[in-house]
Amino acid sequence: MPLKRRFLSSCMLSVNGYSILTDCGEGTQVALKTAGKKCGPIDMICITHFHADHISGLAGLLLTMSNEGRTEPVHIIGPVSLEYVVRSLCVVAPNLPFALRFTEVRDSSPIFCKELKITPFPVLHSIDCIGYTFELAHKGKFDVMKAKKNEVPLPIWSALQKNDTVFFNGKAYTSDMVLGKERKGIKVTYCTDARPGKSIKQNAANADLFICEGMYAEDDKITKAVKKGHMLFSEAAALAKEANVTRLWLTHFSPSLEDPESKIQNAKAVFPDAECGYDGKNIDLKFD
Amino acid sequence: MPLKRRFLSSCMLSVNGYSILTDCGEGTQVALKTAGKKCGPIDMICITHFHADHISGLAGLLLTMSNEGRTEPVHIIGPVSLEYVVRSLCVVAPNLPFALRFTEVRDSSPIFCKELKITPFPVLHSIDCIGYTFELAHKGKFDVMKAKKNEVPLPIWSALQKNDTVFFNGKAYTSDMVLGKERKGIKVTYCTDARPGKSIKQNAANADLFICEGMYAEDDKITKAVKKGHMLFSEAAALAKEANVTRLWLTHFSPSLEDPESKIQNAKAVFPDAECGYDGKNIDLKFD
Repeated sequence: MPLKRRFLSSCMLSVNGYSILTDCGEGTQVALKTAGKKCGPIDMICITHFHADHISGLAGLLLTMSNEGRTEPVHIIGPVSLEYVVRSLCVVAPNLPFALRFTEVRDSSPIFCKELKITPFPVLHSIDCIGYTFELAHKGKFDVMKAKKNEVPLPIWSALQKNDTVFFNGKAYTSDMVLGKERKGIKVTYCTDARPGKSIKQNAANADLFICEGMYAEDDKITKAVKKGHMLFSEAAALAKEANVTRLWLTHFSPSLEDPESKIQNAKAVFPDAECGYDGKNIDLKFD
Repeated sequence: MPLKRRFLSSCMLSVNGYSILTDCGEGTQVALKTAGKKCGPIDMICITHFHADHISGLAGLLLTMSNEGRTEPVHIIGPVSLEYVVRSLCVVAPNLPFALRFTEVRDSSPIFCKELKITPFPVLHSIDCIGYTFELAHKGKFDVMKAKKNEVPLPIWSALQKNDTVFFNGKAYTSDMVLGKERKGIKVTYCTDARPGKSIKQNAANADLFICEGMYAEDDKITKAVKKGHMLFSEAAALAKEANVTRLWLTHFSPSLEDPESKIQNAKAVFPDAECGYDGKNIDLKFD
């Protein structure tokens, strides 16, 4: 349930001028406006599951995208039945001036949004639910010695830094002929709603940012958490620790938890780099 | 489109402990919380039309009503196809613990919510759209002379002030046998989205409060207003004047009209008791 100063689930990832929205609860378009973001240019929308608090803002968002002049197709990713659910919600947003394209996730095959690799993974909730890992690779440095050794012609050195393959004088050259070892990229894993599980730990491994639900702050809420398919602060923190992530942001708090910040110690005791999420929270992640 | 400090259309009418919500745009449940209102006890929901900005908050509202413990059926009024539209939106709110009851409006027959008389009337928009008039009757004063003249037994005098008919010793007595002439009641008319028209003027006649859309502030936007099926400030004010209402609240402003208050003179010039609506605006209307 939304509170006065706490809207529903949504997370915007902006990468080199394009953007991916994950989940779209009621009020997401207002949250985006408040954060100074435009809805129109969103490149892809990833939906974790079909509970209203994660998707009921979608029709309004699509209408606002259309009001902002969008005409290019909108690509939406989500669990099986995605197209049926989205088309049902769009009964109040007919005649959108752009096409909707759907990818219904059936396995963990990666999906690419430009150079961003998106890996969906199944999580355990009361209905089909997906977590998402977003990875931006960081190519190796240009290696002049290697380029010379591989007899790569000088005129295509620059092109090979941006492209995997370049053709020159009837011959194919690949970027590994001029680049050093791939460097550490950026990885973000988003997971809500779920019970803890191996798939989350594996998929969040070494993430720079792990956004994870923390529905209940206190350990004595475990029975409720298990019953409802949610997590405790301490469980999310244990996942962060085991996955060796850099930082954990807790989100998706119970409406009864009005001040999650006051309970953050329950997570920090297990994983010190735990923080509470709040509306509009943001971070710049850069290559090392 | 919602703005940071301006949510979408919705109006709550509270009458003697029960309440009727008209329209339910995205964020309505947050607006209700901000106004200190509970969602759970809402007695009836009236929908004007099926554009997302008037109905896309409904699934979230129904879920919150269920979280607040609601088990009694929820009665929803709206244009033809209401049930299809609401059930489509509720694809993300399955298993509600209460029944949904629908009244699809086909004419202007009044609908009663307890003693409140609700009269739907057709208005001219780009799709089927309904305005609503809400009327609370004010019974006449108890008239001792009349009661005696009509030989109404003393033990049922009090009961006849609250009920239309009371049986006593095998005989029926009606309230008109003890009450004076009906006094002036309270009347509220709500109308958005629409072009001006005779049905609005007739239905808003002598209203204590006329809530009307004012999409565009300036008269030179008339071509746009006609094309989109909306009104100018001056057109809403002219309706208010012709309908002889007590006060006019303008609402449903274009997102390009960030500060409607700065243009209120365009309405006041035609109807001096015009005011701009804003989120959370409220008024107590009492019998004279």
